[in-house]
Amino acid sequence: MPTDAEQACFEAGIKFGSLYHQFAGTPISLDSADSLATAMEEAIENQPYCEAVTVEIRREELEAALSEGPADYTEFTGRFAEVEIVVDYEDSEVVARMEMDDGYPLMALDRVE
Amino acid sequence: MPTDAEQACFEAGIKFGSLYHQFAGTPISLDSADSLATAMEEAIENQPYCEAVTVEIRREELEAALSEGPADYTEFTGRFAEVEIVVDYEDSEVVARMEMDDGYPLMALDRVE
Amino acid sequence: MPTDAEQACFEAGIKFGSLYHQFAGTPISLDSADSLATAMEEAIENQPYCEAVTVEIRREELEAALSEGPADYTEFTGRFAEVEIVVDYEDSEVVARMEMDDGYPLMALDRVE
Amino acid sequence: MPTDAEQACFEAGIKFGSLYHQFAGTPISLDSADSLATAMEEAIENQPYCEAVTVEIRREELEAALSEGPADYTEFTGRFAEVEIVVDYEDSEVVARMEMDDGYPLMALDRVE
Repeated sequence: MPTDAEQACFEAGIKFGSLYHQFAGTPISLDSADSLATAMEEAIENQPYCEAVTVEIRREELEAALSEGPADYTEFTGRFAEVEIVVDYEDSEVVARMEMDDGYPLMALDRVE
Repeated sequence: MPTDAEQACFEAGIKFGSLYHQFAGTPISLDSADSLATAMEEAIENQPYCEAVTVEIRREELEAALSEGPADYTEFTGRFAEVEIVVDYEDSEVVARMEMDDGYPLMALDRVE
Repeated sequence: MPTDAEQACFEAGIKFGSLYHQFAGTPISLDSADSLATAMEEAIENQPYCEAVTVEIRREELEAALSEGPADYTEFTGRFAEVEIVVDYEDSEVVARMEMDDGYPLMALDRVE
Repeated sequence: MPTDAEQACFEAGIKFGSLYHQFAGTPISLDSADSLATAMEEAIENQPYCEAVTVEIRREELEAALSEGPADYTEFTGRFAEVEIVVDYEDSEVVARMEMDDGYPLMALDRVE
């Protein structure tokens, strides 16, 4: 039988994969970034065992990407956000995070209790 | 060469397909429905030639679906929203709509000018 | 520090969330079901630590859904597939599964070693 | 009332938006590219009025992208494919195309009859 901590880690992974692959590709601009971040947080918080989702848009990164191209919007992808997800499963709490690592978005366990 | 009206219809179709297939499957509850609707509107309004997107959540339909199942959220799909999109392409304006038709969501041109 | 087993469970969750939310909503018919299943398997097997993904389309369920509606296709959702994912992380191996449970698709850890 | 050609253009747009936003973000490698292309074709061909969908993976572009990063896969996006879609609506036939234009994927009507 999996431990509570293992179950919590599995659930945290589900939330990250869901968030990323549901919303990757969404048209995003400086003006629409906040409503997308809020929708991502509230949508994923619906999922079981999910205590909190925090999506922080990396606006400088978004501005930099937009300045390279001809349009005032682009597609949402991992370089444009930092995400923290807290999952509680029975007696275990897991905090996981998506951050940039050497130019690539990396999802990682931050804390397992 | 396509006419302006044909181009406007093509662009309106792109917006509908984008909205639907970007957001179908998103976890949605009565509490998170509004933020999802706002994000859908603002995301698709970023696309070229798109003047306005209006997403109205059909809350009774959502409540009915939730009352059938064990969870307080479900997956976003066409039965839970009415959508109107306005596209301007050069001298042409197109209004298109997604509504329920005999139990199925139907995307249709409403007005081509 | 998370254990290898906890890391493996987190990675297995990512794969499930990714698979589901990338492909939910895809138009699917009896004819196109196999190519979608293959694409899901091969796409998710690209992800780190993912040893194997098996997607089995539940064809009777798909036939039943199609017989209720006017079209010969519908949208892919969890009721139309059973999925097994194997993740290896260092010395740990995890097998996870999505199956129907009382009419709802449930993702669960099957084995953690 | 919209003309048949306008309806056909609207339907062609729906197919493009659907294809792009359903599959953008899918993990793709040189090995899995073909199964993804086939699934995209067969999935979208299910949609009404859709006669044919052809997805050609731009393998050199995919190789170039993979050589820049640390992983042997990346996320599917418009630069990795050329897509042609044929829609028949009553007496009208429309051919539309997604191609790279100055570094950006552009969806355009090719022929309206």
